[in-house]
Amino acid sequence: MDCVFCKIRDGELPAEFEYRDDHVMVFKDLNPVAPYHYLVVPTEHIESINQAGAAAAESLTNLFLAAEHVAKKLGFEKNGYRCVINTGANAGQVVMHLHMHLLAGREFSWPPG
Amino acid sequence: MDCVFCKIRDGELPAEFEYRDDHVMVFKDLNPVAPYHYLVVPTEHIESINQAGAAAAESLTNLFLAAEHVAKKLGFEKNGYRCVINTGANAGQVVMHLHMHLLAGREFSWPPG
Repeated sequence: MDCVFCKIRDGELPAEFEYRDDHVMVFKDLNPVAPYHYLVVPTEHIESINQAGAAAAESLTNLFLAAEHVAKKLGFEKNGYRCVINTGANAGQVVMHLHMHLLAGREFSWPPG
Repeated sequence: MDCVFCKIRDGELPAEFEYRDDHVMVFKDLNPVAPYHYLVVPTEHIESINQAGAAAAESLTNLFLAAEHVAKKLGFEKNGYRCVINTGANAGQVVMHLHMHLLAGREFSWPPG
């Protein structure tokens, strides 16, 4: 499969990992829009929240636990952070492997895009 | 407790519900920033992702299942939608009861705030 995140998982493309376990990986976004900008990605290839129903929703539990872990490790959990999941074209989902943006280190405006 | 979302849950404040079960409620945001703008909220009062660890993360599974259900019911799952969770002051979390914004019906720009 020609999926960038699967290639990162398999070591075929480099990434700056901040956290990794059997279910989830957290690495830096190559085009950061905040002082802290990580991608939180299930190791399993799931296209989006739409595709996989309960399985995808359960994997989101792991995504949020990983995000919380990184927020506490890097010390931005108190000032706050924004989590964003884009699904489909209108939202601007570019890589068709489910992922969450974890953004921190500045104030975030409203609306969120 | 003086929590707006708990009052909505208990029927003490009105809201336009789109979906509701024992674990989660989905109702319209009073200040919409998109043609579809819902709040997806656990019925249990959890302050934020930070506060409750695994319990909060598991309740997020229910939030995403409810979001997916509403996306399909209202027919915007194909064009796409953006899910946003704000935690803490930097992200602009106003109501201290965990909630996810479900946004759809237009294109969303980047960065997300």
